[in-house]
Amino acid sequence: MSLERTLHHFPLDPASRQVRLAMGEKRLAFTEVAVKYWERPKDFIRLNPSGMTPVLVESEGDARLVLCESRAILDHLEEVNPEPPLLGRGPAERAEARRLMQWFDRKFDFEVGGFLLHEKMEKRLLGLGAPEFANLRQGREALKNHLFYVEALLADRDWLAGKRLSLADFAAAAHLSVIDYFGDVPWADFPQAKTWYMKLKSRPCFRPLLTDRWPGLTPAPHYDDLDF
Amino acid sequence: MSLERTLHHFPLDPASRQVRLAMGEKRLAFTEVAVKYWERPKDFIRLNPSGMTPVLVESEGDARLVLCESRAILDHLEEVNPEPPLLGRGPAERAEARRLMQWFDRKFDFEVGGFLLHEKMEKRLLGLGAPEFANLRQGREALKNHLFYVEALLADRDWLAGKRLSLADFAAAAHLSVIDYFGDVPWADFPQAKTWYMKLKSRPCFRPLLTDRWPGLTPAPHYDDLDF
Repeated sequence: MSLERTLHHFPLDPASRQVRLAMGEKRLAFTEVAVKYWERPKDFIRLNPSGMTPVLVESEGDARLVLCESRAILDHLEEVNPEPPLLGRGPAERAEARRLMQWFDRKFDFEVGGFLLHEKMEKRLLGLGAPEFANLRQGREALKNHLFYVEALLADRDWLAGKRLSLADFAAAAHLSVIDYFGDVPWADFPQAKTWYMKLKSRPCFRPLLTDRWPGLTPAPHYDDLDF
Repeated sequence: MSLERTLHHFPLDPASRQVRLAMGEKRLAFTEVAVKYWERPKDFIRLNPSGMTPVLVESEGDARLVLCESRAILDHLEEVNPEPPLLGRGPAERAEARRLMQWFDRKFDFEVGGFLLHEKMEKRLLGLGAPEFANLRQGREALKNHLFYVEALLADRDWLAGKRLSLADFAAAAHLSVIDYFGDVPWADFPQAKTWYMKLKSRPCFRPLLTDRWPGLTPAPHYDDLDF
């Protein structure tokens, strides 16, 4: 009897992308179900009453474990499949990776994604009309500040949280990659961030994200280009 | 040489309260520093560049570990001081506790706190004028839906995530307790939620929260009443 995994996700959801990157890096096979979360599908709400992606279902025979919300899934994967470790080994490394995860999931999402993805993605998916220029500008300004911070971190680090690739890199890359799908990341002005993103983009775990397309949402021409 | 802990927090911040409850339950002594996060104090920004509370500093001789953001702190405390366990013992229990932590930190905070605490607390702290009625109404409507959900969970559970007290209870209680400070929780309409909250309120770890007061922000008369 073998363990089967099904990931219910939306391809352009940053939270879902973090889980896909972590599972890819840990070489865990899974079946995918794309969820139109904004339509609040009944089957999906039964799995996760919050209505939010991602949800991972692990089945083995009759036993079934339903894991809802990105952080619960990531923590579970780390506990059950510890190799390669994506949270660091000691308390200081782990604290730094977790600090940056929350930075991107809370601060970046609120200040950047909440404006740019709302205007460019959610409005399109929900049929809410054209993006508002003032909101795009606010999101782009905040994005620059976050990229300055990423540059500062990378000035003396190989990866965001330190010497090793961690969930902090996946959190940052997941959020930035969706913004990049819509062509809004000014990579040329942030050379360290660009090199870091190139390294991530060329990892096998990243490949599936680069093939994501959603009807009505056309990616920027350089989106899947490894040499952007 | 003994370990010293300093918690930098804002008394009415739900994220800070979760950490205080967990440290209280684990009987970990700590020194407190109250942070006016909205003034972005320089010393505090040096500790946590996101500018957000809470931050826990652990010192032992010359060694110092700075833990930023609630989830990083809670996960660290659970790893380093596992007794009593606040995340459950098996994968299913842990997944359920973590699902609900994210429910309250993301969904509840966005739908309820973002309206009620912004209008009643942040506007006062920032000198932004009177609360807007439409926002208060929207927050109160959302709060009712969340309380219905809490009632449904408690219909066949002792605690929110199952048989044992967990970080899910502390997340919910931390968010609700700040709303309750401002008198906006309609406890009388939600008897199971009320009983659950009474149980929490009478635990030793909850006491410090009930003595919290902030200049210019007067708590509802029943706020610190164990028999509300």
